[in-house]
Amino acid sequence: MLKNIDLTRKVGKKEYKEQKEPLDIKLAGLQRRAFEKKVPVIIVFEGWDAAGKGTLINDLILPLDPRGFTVCSSLPPTEEERLRPFLWRFWIKTPPRGRIAVFDRSWYRVLLSDRVDGNLKPAEVRRAARDILSFERQLCDDGAVIIKFFLHISKAVQKRRLEKLRRDRFTRWRVTGEDMKRHRQYAAYLTATEEMLAGTDSEFAPWTVVEAHDRRFAALKIFNTVISRLRRRLSAAGRTSRKKAARAAAGIPENLRVSILDRVPLEQALAVEEYRERLKKKQKRVRELEHEIYMKRIPVVIVYEGWDAAGKGGNIRRLTQNLDPRGYEVVPIAAPNDIELAHHYLWRFWKEIPKAGHITIFDRSWYGRVMVERVEGFCSEAEWRRAYREINEIEQHIADFGTVMFKFWLHIDPEEQLRRFESRQKIAHKRWKITDEDWRNRKKTRAYKTAIEEMLFRTSTPYAPWTIVESNCKRFARIKVLDTVIDGIEARLRH
Amino acid sequence: MLKNIDLTRKVGKKEYKEQKEPLDIKLAGLQRRAFEKKVPVIIVFEGWDAAGKGTLINDLILPLDPRGFTVCSSLPPTEEERLRPFLWRFWIKTPPRGRIAVFDRSWYRVLLSDRVDGNLKPAEVRRAARDILSFERQLCDDGAVIIKFFLHISKAVQKRRLEKLRRDRFTRWRVTGEDMKRHRQYAAYLTATEEMLAGTDSEFAPWTVVEAHDRRFAALKIFNTVISRLRRRLSAAGRTSRKKAARAAAGIPENLRVSILDRVPLEQALAVEEYRERLKKKQKRVRELEHEIYMKRIPVVIVYEGWDAAGKGGNIRRLTQNLDPRGYEVVPIAAPNDIELAHHYLWRFWKEIPKAGHITIFDRSWYGRVMVERVEGFCSEAEWRRAYREINEIEQHIADFGTVMFKFWLHIDPEEQLRRFESRQKIAHKRWKITDEDWRNRKKTRAYKTAIEEMLFRTSTPYAPWTIVESNCKRFARIKVLDTVIDGIEARLRH
Repeated sequence: MLKNIDLTRKVGKKEYKEQKEPLDIKLAGLQRRAFEKKVPVIIVFEGWDAAGKGTLINDLILPLDPRGFTVCSSLPPTEEERLRPFLWRFWIKTPPRGRIAVFDRSWYRVLLSDRVDGNLKPAEVRRAARDILSFERQLCDDGAVIIKFFLHISKAVQKRRLEKLRRDRFTRWRVTGEDMKRHRQYAAYLTATEEMLAGTDSEFAPWTVVEAHDRRFAALKIFNTVISRLRRRLSAAGRTSRKKAARAAAGIPENLRVSILDRVPLEQALAVEEYRERLKKKQKRVRELEHEIYMKRIPVVIVYEGWDAAGKGGNIRRLTQNLDPRGYEVVPIAAPNDIELAHHYLWRFWKEIPKAGHITIFDRSWYGRVMVERVEGFCSEAEWRRAYREINEIEQHIADFGTVMFKFWLHIDPEEQLRRFESRQKIAHKRWKITDEDWRNRKKTRAYKTAIEEMLFRTSTPYAPWTIVESNCKRFARIKVLDTVIDGIEARLRH
Repeated sequence: MLKNIDLTRKVGKKEYKEQKEPLDIKLAGLQRRAFEKKVPVIIVFEGWDAAGKGTLINDLILPLDPRGFTVCSSLPPTEEERLRPFLWRFWIKTPPRGRIAVFDRSWYRVLLSDRVDGNLKPAEVRRAARDILSFERQLCDDGAVIIKFFLHISKAVQKRRLEKLRRDRFTRWRVTGEDMKRHRQYAAYLTATEEMLAGTDSEFAPWTVVEAHDRRFAALKIFNTVISRLRRRLSAAGRTSRKKAARAAAGIPENLRVSILDRVPLEQALAVEEYRERLKKKQKRVRELEHEIYMKRIPVVIVYEGWDAAGKGGNIRRLTQNLDPRGYEVVPIAAPNDIELAHHYLWRFWKEIPKAGHITIFDRSWYGRVMVERVEGFCSEAEWRRAYREINEIEQHIADFGTVMFKFWLHIDPEEQLRRFESRQKIAHKRWKITDEDWRNRKKTRAYKTAIEEMLFRTSTPYAPWTIVESNCKRFARIKVLDTVIDGIEARLRH
């Protein structure tokens, strides 16, 4: 979930000042309302060393009434704490109704440092994740709000910050050998973090990743998230005006949301000759691999999603052009028919799951639930919110069976889309490809973008990651898909 | 969950006839309403070979409109099915909205025969249970009703039935070598079944164990359960009269519910001399074991629950009389105070969880949630219904840490209770022990019994089983508790 996130985002000083003060007032007001309505609030801060947890927690609590919150620092467990189940020390610190508990690191330590240090076997990691999910679900069922932040910085920025702390003789003591060791293990922690985020993201206690290179950006995102989650919970807790309910549902401002698509290097391109040469080679290789996975009974699922006119059809054709038709199938997904509508939305996709040794290519997929169905209101908010977890669960079940999963998001920018729409309308034999609906969807680009970025964030998992395919140049896109499929299958075969 | 269940229950022919016909009519009516309201219904039959699944499924579908249901026999997976994730073949058979699917064996096969045959590693068993829970939750979130039956017969009855089938030349073919092999493995299947029931019992898809020695009893229980679950779901789905809602909430008739307490052999007793002799020996042994678990850092939790005047206090005193006070603690649980009420109901118990090497004895416990709080209406129905799963999750977390758990239900009959109440009132120095509340509770004995039997059934797990302690004779009860604690700790130390 972290890989594609844009970490460069910033907020200027002036903008920050203007926005921060009203947020302080709102937050203080919500704290009072949570107290009145007896809603317990749990705010978790996880993140890289030197990501700024301390500073940001301080920013957050300053506007609060100090009688109404506690900050719990979760150091490595003491001897006393080690003698009990790991959730014990957190259970006893859960806040009473109406109070706020801020956790500086938390129960997630077990899935991060304990895991990377090798103190936990894989089965124990899974058990810990299961216990954490139960713990959070039990608290939320009881009325609590759980807000979880992961403060994300790059390895390079972490290095810079640690070095700066070490240079200053007043802060030198803060950087321990352990910190430097963890810094060197950044890659191992990244994997553990990805799995943690995927395994413990839920509709009742979702994760918010905070891009923490810029403190002001991070602070605004944290404030807005806390305010939005509290508003949503408090508006559910009692009668509120329609205006308040709408404000609660709106979530955090667009400019603070996870940004993945804005930084995609769409300028990447491939010249015709190079393309032709590579295409031939890659297509040959994919056919070889098709035979090999057949022999080894490995199933493969390939999901294509992307903007209208991003070139899904042509891309799929290049992927399959040279394949043995007995080994693969392309499943185009349109609006569900009556029989499909009468079932669980996942049912029609289950029917198409490949058997071992075969490849199924989905031209659009179950992700419709969190894109078109969300944006067009074809399902309720509760339905699309819980769909992220449902989809992750299903994909994990399929991946656990041994399936290699690819999910491609074919990305183009609005200008390129417009060019393609117009060209489709001009060329007679391409006109069927463009409908009024395409133009209508285009008007909702912003709503779709929000939905797509949340989808890419919440459903990019270690077992079924998203690959963003820069598709302004169709040739580049086709080769990238072929490369990704080849690499992924080869990696599996090496195991 | 199976161990203590009374399997001897029967229904006479006349009673059956009288009750069955109205049930047929009700069931047919509910099928029509489920169709109108577009509620999909999934009915799962699991159980021992020769438990009568075929016959009972047939009984169930006879009154139904054949256009509205399907029966799916889940044989061992075919070659085709084996090539896909194990839930695949069940997902594609989930019924459309408004229809009923009856599964003759189901996705639980993976936790039973696949597991006992050793096809699954322990980690895979856990993963399968996790996937099943997600699967069922996803369907229920989507509006489905899932009703799960386990048909239970004893090993002796199974043997008798299999032999009878083999003697008859028309039915001989039905008993395969596999059946006989599974019969010989009854004990292994019992363990697997216990774990399956505990691990996949949930508030959205709870298990119903059907005592299947008597076909008429089993049929009535199945009909009543299906009717009650459908009513509850359909009354939630739309506006219903208060009368209908009350009927829906009432559940199945008392005489068909799991019976555990009626068959407890309360006549068991111990003479004074034998008691004294054993008591001394056992108390010495418990003290030795207290030291040994301290050295080995094994925590022990002992929960005492039981009827008023069942003798909890005296029993605990005999258990602890000879112990080293630094190694154990008795925690008496009264009504929660204000601070406790402001937290999750489990919070106050978490605070008392023993550290490794220590023993904590709870005199009453978190089980108040599903007894007094349920019966007296101190919590909502939704709250006590989900508490079974919450308690199982918490106990599993504690047991996974290495804690040895004992849960004692001190059982006496109402006559003995009355005798003790009256004697308390007569004897001056015992009078403080009896309050008006005790007399009030006594009037609600039936409601408590229902709650207690459901508790004993739903929270008796392989990692934290209930022990029913026959306490009409206090001496017998004290020795039984000592024996159970000694055996349990010794078994752990042998590992």
